Amino acid sequence: MSREPRPIRSDIAWSTRDRIEVRGKSLPDEILGHFNLGDLAYLQLTGKTPTEAESRVFNAIVITLVEHGITPSALAARLTYAGAPESLQAAVAAGLCGLGTVFVGSMEGAAKMLYEVLPTDAPADADLDAIAKQTVADYRARKQIIPGLGHPLHKPVDPRTPRLFAIAEDNGMAGRYVELMGRIQVEAEAASGKQLPINATGAIGAICCEFGFPGHIVRGFGVMARAIGLVGHILEESENPMGVEIWQRIEDEATAHIRPE
Amino acid sequence: MSREPRPIRSDIAWSTRDRIEVRGKSLPDEILGHFNLGDLAYLQLTGKTPTEAESRVFNAIVITLVEHGITPSALAARLTYAGAPESLQAAVAAGLCGLGTVFVGSMEGAAKMLYEVLPTDAPADADLDAIAKQTVADYRARKQIIPGLGHPLHKPVDPRTPRLFAIAEDNGMAGRYVELMGRIQVEAEAASGKQLPINATGAIGAICCEFGFPGHIVRGFGVMARAIGLVGHILEESENPMGVEIWQRIEDEATAHIRPE
Amino acid sequence: MSREPRPIRSDIAWSTRDRIEVRGKSLPDEILGHFNLGDLAYLQLTGKTPTEAESRVFNAIVITLVEHGITPSALAARLTYAGAPESLQAAVAAGLCGLGTVFVGSMEGAAKMLYEVLPTDAPADADLDAIAKQTVADYRARKQIIPGLGHPLHKPVDPRTPRLFAIAEDNGMAGRYVELMGRIQVEAEAASGKQLPINATGAIGAICCEFGFPGHIVRGFGVMARAIGLVGHILEESENPMGVEIWQRIEDEATAHIRPE
Amino acid sequence: MSREPRPIRSDIAWSTRDRIEVRGKSLPDEILGHFNLGDLAYLQLTGKTPTEAESRVFNAIVITLVEHGITPSALAARLTYAGAPESLQAAVAAGLCGLGTVFVGSMEGAAKMLYEVLPTDAPADADLDAIAKQTVADYRARKQIIPGLGHPLHKPVDPRTPRLFAIAEDNGMAGRYVELMGRIQVEAEAASGKQLPINATGAIGAICCEFGFPGHIVRGFGVMARAIGLVGHILEESENPMGVEIWQRIEDEATAHIRPE
Repeated sequence: MSREPRPIRSDIAWSTRDRIEVRGKSLPDEILGHFNLGDLAYLQLTGKTPTEAESRVFNAIVITLVEHGITPSALAARLTYAGAPESLQAAVAAGLCGLGTVFVGSMEGAAKMLYEVLPTDAPADADLDAIAKQTVADYRARKQIIPGLGHPLHKPVDPRTPRLFAIAEDNGMAGRYVELMGRIQVEAEAASGKQLPINATGAIGAICCEFGFPGHIVRGFGVMARAIGLVGHILEESENPMGVEIWQRIEDEATAHIRPE
Repeated sequence: MSREPRPIRSDIAWSTRDRIEVRGKSLPDEILGHFNLGDLAYLQLTGKTPTEAESRVFNAIVITLVEHGITPSALAARLTYAGAPESLQAAVAAGLCGLGTVFVGSMEGAAKMLYEVLPTDAPADADLDAIAKQTVADYRARKQIIPGLGHPLHKPVDPRTPRLFAIAEDNGMAGRYVELMGRIQVEAEAASGKQLPINATGAIGAICCEFGFPGHIVRGFGVMARAIGLVGHILEESENPMGVEIWQRIEDEATAHIRPE
Repeated sequence: MSREPRPIRSDIAWSTRDRIEVRGKSLPDEILGHFNLGDLAYLQLTGKTPTEAESRVFNAIVITLVEHGITPSALAARLTYAGAPESLQAAVAAGLCGLGTVFVGSMEGAAKMLYEVLPTDAPADADLDAIAKQTVADYRARKQIIPGLGHPLHKPVDPRTPRLFAIAEDNGMAGRYVELMGRIQVEAEAASGKQLPINATGAIGAICCEFGFPGHIVRGFGVMARAIGLVGHILEESENPMGVEIWQRIEDEATAHIRPE
Repeated sequence: MSREPRPIRSDIAWSTRDRIEVRGKSLPDEILGHFNLGDLAYLQLTGKTPTEAESRVFNAIVITLVEHGITPSALAARLTYAGAPESLQAAVAAGLCGLGTVFVGSMEGAAKMLYEVLPTDAPADADLDAIAKQTVADYRARKQIIPGLGHPLHKPVDPRTPRLFAIAEDNGMAGRYVELMGRIQVEAEAASGKQLPINATGAIGAICCEFGFPGHIVRGFGVMARAIGLVGHILEESENPMGVEIWQRIEDEATAHIRPE
């Protein structure tokens, strides 16, 4: 095995006896007391300090992702905590494991769709109506669901979407991708005859394109935000638990059809 | 199984067709655009909106916990990503699983120690010097390490600690627990003859006591903050990977002593 | 950082271009076709090939741990699968995260208790009755639950226990630890006036002491066995799901008290 | 929410006060002492008791998957254990999280490829040579790697493959899928001019098709088997650790280029 080792390097952070830097900034002197958590997340993930406008919009989109109620993910975390209360971190980890293609994935899907039909270097006079029409037609032909549209509960409007778009607008960050997402919705509702609101993940996907975030980073926002939400659920579970009750009800019901007497 | 079902309830969030509330506030109207991520985390975990002073101190302590360089946890996340790049969430989860008693636990330990020797309802004239002396003597008698003191690299001072204490001070939140932590350090250094700086987890543990946070919540801060840091590591890994190189080096070395030729 | 690197080595397995060895045996020639999965697990975990008697007893104890019905752990795995069906491995991982002190831990606890009160080098004429009496008295004085005793459903006998002890007996492996566990039960029932059957984890804990397995390995048996069980649950979930239904029911109920209309 | 609840049911196991059944068999009376762990896994995952031939072949394929040396997955588990030694289950979970598309996925990929080009109801006189030729041509045209072929170390033969095929043959289970996999290899080597041994995951994928296992179950075998392997690694880590040494070496090296000494 005369393998030549390849270099291993990371540019995120370093420390010496008396200094600690994160992304090129002194943690004690330039970050602590100067950044809020959302801005530091932006720095950690992109390597850049957000402008004030970027800070407002970025904080709004990640905050939207923190808490979605009693989700399958929150339930998995709570049920895990019931068995291993000494390992709070493992309960959060269990909850994160389910943030896959079904729920959080649609955000990433919306961003990827938008980049694909409107590349960042598309000409300034790209015809958004034509693109929207074509996109909807293509998804319908492939019998695929358009990512970011539709919601089982929030109809005809997902209340987060107009607010997120307004915050983007107020901060000069509602450009072509937000516009295009809106036109895709109009086309999709016309073509299907159904209410297909832009849901929060669709709004966030579009705004992420305005930032120029690569598609795969977008799921990362959901994962880090939901970690905060899950800690909240586990703290509530530690005070007012539901895990054991869920277990007993479901076990009783699930096996009643084969269990004697 | 005539078990009487017990009620299942959560007070964190709810939604209807056109409304979404988190901790009693309208997400679109009262949270988005008004909170930064750190303040929302405070709301999610405590149920309260932080004051401006609390916001500054809380953001500083959770930011301190986001990024600690190439930790075992960051390596576990990167190695997981190497095998399952389609499951970013699982890589973050793997990284979180290691945030147990060894590293993050000392923060929780410091808070619990301080609450134990100085309960929140201790009389106003509690003798902090005497408590510090007794605490150090007790730990030494039990041959236990005092949580929150000492650092393998940062000596004689952990550069995060004076900064965190200054931010607490500036915001009126450096009270008896911060004071006591300092006196415990002085006693411990005197008794042991070694440099035992208050490390970042010790500083954070003390400040968490000033907030009145229950001890077990404190590990939750570490877990949620580190989730942000881990997403940053996975994004870097996706662009400039080290996982496969680590694997090959370690595998070569680990089995060289038994592998023929 | 003139740190001297310390050696990194593993003695579990190695491979070259044309050979693969696990625990000193050729995988193709000496293991495949010669071992069953339980025996290979024994080899992997202990470095030794089980005798025929050890094989029968070990297979019985790990099989007992595979499937425990609709547990919190199985539910966490199923709920995770609902969100990330593309990551079967992450659903199993989520399920494993909850195998902590509450359920699986009692097995480890029973083994540790038995080793503590009857060390492996205890004299041949150790008075098991006296030890049992003392052990029960000590636990009662400390108001601690005796690990391995009692079951919410299986009373007055856990049906697995007599069968496991019979298999151990038939294979010459029911020695002092099995005997002692039985006497501790008798003492505990007499002292408390309650039915306290030796449950499966108590039986397994005692048999693990007969093998001489170190206490902390015992939880490992539970984890590896349950991984098999969880794969079975996820396969059933993929064909006949319950995750989404659980989510919807619990979410509805949990927030009914604060949700308008 | 006048939602009509849908039934929740599981057919894997049930228990009453004095009985426990798994897959329709009494755990104490019909399973313990009668099954080995591999056969019980077969029962748990398929609902069927294996024949003697199936038992031999199934045990061989899952055993092959238990231990693959110092893999990224084993390293993730060990690094997790270094931070949370009190949560053995979380370390195994972290290791499992990386069993995604890159390593374990190729097994599932091989099975799916074989089912696709030779459905189980294909006519008895299907021309395997023609199918192999077409399959290789299709993958090459799409510039895709053929799953189950090629190995970085084991060349020109993966030593596990002939042994697995021999065990299948000896037990009457080397039918058309094993045959086809071999012809695909011959075609692929001829077309590419490279050594492309059928690797262990290719051999297992083909044998799984002989069993008729659905494609997605196959990854489940890998996950459950590797859980056993990971417990072995964590036990070794607890006695002869490498996690902290890996961490220190990699951290030193990774940040040397930006760290002021």
